[in-house]
Amino acid sequence: MEQQQLMDRAAAFIRQCYQELAIDEAQTELRMTEVMKQIVNSGTYRHTTEELTHGARLAWRNSNRCIGRLFWQSLAVLDAREVESSDEAAEAVFEHMAFATNNGRIRPAITIFAQEQEHGGGRSNNLRIWNHQLVRYAGYEQPDGTVVGDPLSVPFTRVCESLGWKGEGTPFDVLPLVIGPSNGTPAVYEIPEELVLQVPLIHPTEPRFSALALQWYAVPFISDMALEIGGIRYPAAPFNGWYMGTEIGARNLSDVSRYNKLRPIAELFGYDMTTNTSLWKDRALVELNAAVLHSYKSAGVSIVDHHTAAEQFGRFEQQELAAGRSVTGRWSWLIPPMSPSATPIWHRGFDNTEREPRFSYQPKPYST
Amino acid sequence: MEQQQLMDRAAAFIRQCYQELAIDEAQTELRMTEVMKQIVNSGTYRHTTEELTHGARLAWRNSNRCIGRLFWQSLAVLDAREVESSDEAAEAVFEHMAFATNNGRIRPAITIFAQEQEHGGGRSNNLRIWNHQLVRYAGYEQPDGTVVGDPLSVPFTRVCESLGWKGEGTPFDVLPLVIGPSNGTPAVYEIPEELVLQVPLIHPTEPRFSALALQWYAVPFISDMALEIGGIRYPAAPFNGWYMGTEIGARNLSDVSRYNKLRPIAELFGYDMTTNTSLWKDRALVELNAAVLHSYKSAGVSIVDHHTAAEQFGRFEQQELAAGRSVTGRWSWLIPPMSPSATPIWHRGFDNTEREPRFSYQPKPYST
Repeated sequence: MEQQQLMDRAAAFIRQCYQELAIDEAQTELRMTEVMKQIVNSGTYRHTTEELTHGARLAWRNSNRCIGRLFWQSLAVLDAREVESSDEAAEAVFEHMAFATNNGRIRPAITIFAQEQEHGGGRSNNLRIWNHQLVRYAGYEQPDGTVVGDPLSVPFTRVCESLGWKGEGTPFDVLPLVIGPSNGTPAVYEIPEELVLQVPLIHPTEPRFSALALQWYAVPFISDMALEIGGIRYPAAPFNGWYMGTEIGARNLSDVSRYNKLRPIAELFGYDMTTNTSLWKDRALVELNAAVLHSYKSAGVSIVDHHTAAEQFGRFEQQELAAGRSVTGRWSWLIPPMSPSATPIWHRGFDNTEREPRFSYQPKPYST
Repeated sequence: MEQQQLMDRAAAFIRQCYQELAIDEAQTELRMTEVMKQIVNSGTYRHTTEELTHGARLAWRNSNRCIGRLFWQSLAVLDAREVESSDEAAEAVFEHMAFATNNGRIRPAITIFAQEQEHGGGRSNNLRIWNHQLVRYAGYEQPDGTVVGDPLSVPFTRVCESLGWKGEGTPFDVLPLVIGPSNGTPAVYEIPEELVLQVPLIHPTEPRFSALALQWYAVPFISDMALEIGGIRYPAAPFNGWYMGTEIGARNLSDVSRYNKLRPIAELFGYDMTTNTSLWKDRALVELNAAVLHSYKSAGVSIVDHHTAAEQFGRFEQQELAAGRSVTGRWSWLIPPMSPSATPIWHRGFDNTEREPRFSYQPKPYST
């Protein structure tokens, strides 16, 4: 990044951050001068704990794809910038998992590892978490082309296997944690079982539903996105909220290219599958999603349904407007994948401008 | 429109049209010369019947918002360009309605009235159909702010009333046909009852559903869009296909800002409405949509469910690819408003380039 661009982004962030934190003008000026000096002298700068904390929260608030932003101020920010080795990083990740899972009363959190250093225009070889999510089920392609487990995980499962890991071959094998430099061989860590809370799916009224032997993990920890604050990039910054039910019930377990379970569910409920007009897919989707919500609630694991999430998003918007800020968003991600027109989100448009601080996609650290 | 721009658009259309119709090069050249001469001499040109027919079909094929484009070649094109008076226009509209409704075996059709003439840069005062759709239910705002009928029709209902029309005040009063010049007083025509096929809603398994006294009309005739072919604009060109069930069941009858019927349906089925997590809205939506499909089928009225429509769209794309043409589309319109992730359309992107010939929005001919 050009030094001037970094200075501009740093200045914009410092101003916004200090203003929102109600820090007085004099202190803001002092800090601004200090940051600019650091950039001039070293080509980069280092966030204070306060800046890091508020910056991460702003990145959540600015997440155009996220319907759950009402709670952005509650994000717990775990500072792991001093971590250097993969072993220490795995330790920090495990601590994050325990803190966030909290026996089911999920706490939104982010762990932020070292910032990217630029050396002579090139990027430094920061640690990266190779997993898409900290907890994710393996996918094993069978000789006949079918997949046991999560088809989306097939390429990464192969990577894990090439690194010496071997799963049990069930549909719900938790993949190991893979941490390493972008270039080079990573370390592989089995995630301690007690850190992976999982929820077997039961249906509120149909006991035979359990025979499908479906389950999902409690906490979605996104671990492959970069966090960008004031021109500084953190390539390893795993974060979590809690699930909206449809992510599990109307995508992970139901998508044809994922667990593809609508057909067995429709069979279980005895729907007429000889015609689309019986709406058997829609009916199976409702029952699966009802089961997801019921199971998580019964297990004491935080989850939100899409109607409540849409209401909360409306409150987030009002809150932002009251603070004199407009809300950006991406319609195609904010609408739930089930009964979307039954939520207010469907009926309006959004400004999809991307603001910093933000979470951003980055190239995978491995090739498949 | 600049003469050069009109020439370019005309030339592009003539080339595409004659190529697709496999008309030989010599004839195409002849026609091209003739069209250019007409433009030079008169500032515009007139389509042959063949051009008009294929042009209208191309406008359907190019409709980025339409999931039903597989059938574009079957569009019946009714040439009403000679019509001058409102009375004749109403007559042509009624003929279109009878032809398209066809006792329920719906035939996609378009009636094309006179092309727009430009005089000295301004637009001529062509006839316009003032209705959004030929058949639509009135909306009557009550003193307490609630609406009897379709809330979306409230402004146009007021226009009709100001023109002397008076409805019966039921939730399903068919609005009159309003035809007139963009500037000036239009004529109002009661649509003959036998031309408005309607379907009372019954549920496949719940006989008490009929007590909700819901219904919808058989044929969606869009009557407020302009048709543009090769630089020529037809401001009155009502067209119809048949309904996809979700348009009625997951929008018109269920949207909170329309007939808003999910709550009474959920009550009828006895769903737990004390919590969002019972998914009572989703369940009511499924039952309403099942009722719509079942009722139309039972009444012998053409309708397509969203799963079948999505399959047909896939066949349309394959057909277009096989013809060496790419398909443009608008994701947010193509996904159905119910269980969208259960259709392949959800899982991909589209090029939303707008091609001519096309249907386009135009300013309303009245102010509200």
